[in-house]
Amino acid sequence: MSTIALLTDFGTQDWYVAAMKAVMLRICPRAQFVDISHAVTPGDIRQAAFVLLSSYSYFPDRTVFLIVVDPGVGSERDVLVAETDSSLVVAPDNGVASYMLKACSPVATCRGTNSKFMLSKLSTTFHGRDIFAPIAAHLAAGVAPAECGDPLPHPVELAWPEATITSRELKGEVVYIDRFGNAITSIDTDRLQKLPPGVYQAYLPNGMSLPVHAYYQEVAAGMPLAITGSGGLIEISINQGNAARRLGLHIGSCIALK
Amino acid sequence: MSTIALLTDFGTQDWYVAAMKAVMLRICPRAQFVDISHAVTPGDIRQAAFVLLSSYSYFPDRTVFLIVVDPGVGSERDVLVAETDSSLVVAPDNGVASYMLKACSPVATCRGTNSKFMLSKLSTTFHGRDIFAPIAAHLAAGVAPAECGDPLPHPVELAWPEATITSRELKGEVVYIDRFGNAITSIDTDRLQKLPPGVYQAYLPNGMSLPVHAYYQEVAAGMPLAITGSGGLIEISINQGNAARRLGLHIGSCIALK
Amino acid sequence: MSTIALLTDFGTQDWYVAAMKAVMLRICPRAQFVDISHAVTPGDIRQAAFVLLSSYSYFPDRTVFLIVVDPGVGSERDVLVAETDSSLVVAPDNGVASYMLKACSPVATCRGTNSKFMLSKLSTTFHGRDIFAPIAAHLAAGVAPAECGDPLPHPVELAWPEATITSRELKGEVVYIDRFGNAITSIDTDRLQKLPPGVYQAYLPNGMSLPVHAYYQEVAAGMPLAITGSGGLIEISINQGNAARRLGLHIGSCIALK
Repeated sequence: MSTIALLTDFGTQDWYVAAMKAVMLRICPRAQFVDISHAVTPGDIRQAAFVLLSSYSYFPDRTVFLIVVDPGVGSERDVLVAETDSSLVVAPDNGVASYMLKACSPVATCRGTNSKFMLSKLSTTFHGRDIFAPIAAHLAAGVAPAECGDPLPHPVELAWPEATITSRELKGEVVYIDRFGNAITSIDTDRLQKLPPGVYQAYLPNGMSLPVHAYYQEVAAGMPLAITGSGGLIEISINQGNAARRLGLHIGSCIALK
Repeated sequence: MSTIALLTDFGTQDWYVAAMKAVMLRICPRAQFVDISHAVTPGDIRQAAFVLLSSYSYFPDRTVFLIVVDPGVGSERDVLVAETDSSLVVAPDNGVASYMLKACSPVATCRGTNSKFMLSKLSTTFHGRDIFAPIAAHLAAGVAPAECGDPLPHPVELAWPEATITSRELKGEVVYIDRFGNAITSIDTDRLQKLPPGVYQAYLPNGMSLPVHAYYQEVAAGMPLAITGSGGLIEISINQGNAARRLGLHIGSCIALK
Repeated sequence: MSTIALLTDFGTQDWYVAAMKAVMLRICPRAQFVDISHAVTPGDIRQAAFVLLSSYSYFPDRTVFLIVVDPGVGSERDVLVAETDSSLVVAPDNGVASYMLKACSPVATCRGTNSKFMLSKLSTTFHGRDIFAPIAAHLAAGVAPAECGDPLPHPVELAWPEATITSRELKGEVVYIDRFGNAITSIDTDRLQKLPPGVYQAYLPNGMSLPVHAYYQEVAAGMPLAITGSGGLIEISINQGNAARRLGLHIGSCIALK
């Protein structure tokens, strides 16, 4: 069985994800699909890049990641085929895979141009079905990335909003808000250890300061806190509540630990 | 592995889809499920018929399509079991499979009456679990359609809102609106070639006229256009925007190309 | 193939469900996943318990049920590993599996403490990925429940809102509202037979009384009725309409049959 992990902004109400899976099953009948998410905000490359970064490392070796968040479909953007030590990636070359690729250094990056691995008839609006999915399925079936096209030496990279550190302060920003309203920041917990020992508070844009805790239950239900999230980043949360909504946090909100 | 493709109006919040899959795995443990959609508007047979028409041809040969959009559950409507050159269909006989069957001419259509292929205890409200799913799983496991019941010579057909053509004009209507707000019309792009050569515009009910383009990027972000969609039908779209919402289009809105 | 059925309150917009599946595929590459639902209201243990009760019995023997509705994540609550005659359950010991376990008497219940079956690095906020999923995958791969930890003799139980019966009346309450707006009550249809023969009506909190019918079609489209639902419980429905919304029903609303 070959695992193919899908991440798109297609939603699940239409047939678009199913059409991609159908195309892939024709090429690789033993594919095992895992949906990472299809609820990326339409066209939000940065959000998808963060979701991929947060999830890719848990997948089995040789997983093929098929990422289709492609506001430039039909334009000149390249098709990126990348190979890392442990996995394969097919995505538009618009930066959507760049956080992941930065974290796990690709051994090869190619331009997906070989029409042998695409549908014979290409639409101008649905390259997910006609180009990305069949390439991903061929990789899952054993095709080598280099067969897909010439090297693409410098794939597009998105800037990561690196947390900044001063003598007694770490500054980052909210990079993702999840279903529960947890506001995930760009502040890596490991960096807290570079600050002088002491008790730190998280400061929000509205002036509020929150304690940093290890467990939700260290505060009462309904109370806010900062916590190390499951991806090793500081999150602003409310125990059994929606922090983003109640504290007015959104993508880009500045968070300081001091 | 046998592919079973599911299309329902059950949503994914309750356990209804899972109950159908569970029932099928008992009968056909090697089934490979692909969810086409479970977000069909409750009871909207026409919407589901269009979704099936748009997706079926991408699936592998011998796929079993299990369609449960069944506002008449518990009434006298028949259970339709159909076989085409390349696939099998199980659906209520209410027209939901008729666009697909018209496009790929069934070789056999039967009435699913053989209780051997149903659960032993039938509810009156959930034939998806008790009748349709077990029949689909038995087909996937190799049972012949003719074993399911007597021929059903004239399955219910839905009328397709055929585009009309005059000397210099093609008239159709909006038949589907997708997650991105693309308004898909009943106008087949191929028919444009029957019009005299020239530059055509799409006319909307609000009096607006839009250029017909090949790529979203031929207009600026936020600008509307008409384009050949991925299913070969003319769509009214906005480059990186929601056309249906912004242009006031809904199912049945008249669109003319002239 | 081993079936693993998932029920969580994680939603499908983030990568949380995918991370669990990814972890499980590393341990049990031949797992066949069935999503029961990921749309449980965040933290609503009782809702999840009802969904599991309603669906578990349709799954193949040896299915592993992985239930993660865990508002107490990171606190002292135990990890429950249970074995019944026909299946295995991994869940937080907060009662979420108790309706199912009451219905099918477990042969063994253990505390999931053996770190050999968990990820090596545990977060404090995502035990679904770090503890529950890997234990479930090890069970699916053949590990015996007793290897997971010591017996847990008295798992937490939720009270079921048992319908009460008097000489000529059955009283229950709404326990679940589905996508279609059907309000499922705690009144088991079988108990109707303990009442004197006769024609019964369902009485709603707003004073309305509804006929009890066997099929939706016994009333006109848009008309309300009481009906035996697919799980054997009385439901308040509207033929092709949303009963909960139109009749003002919610979880806990009292329904009487007399």
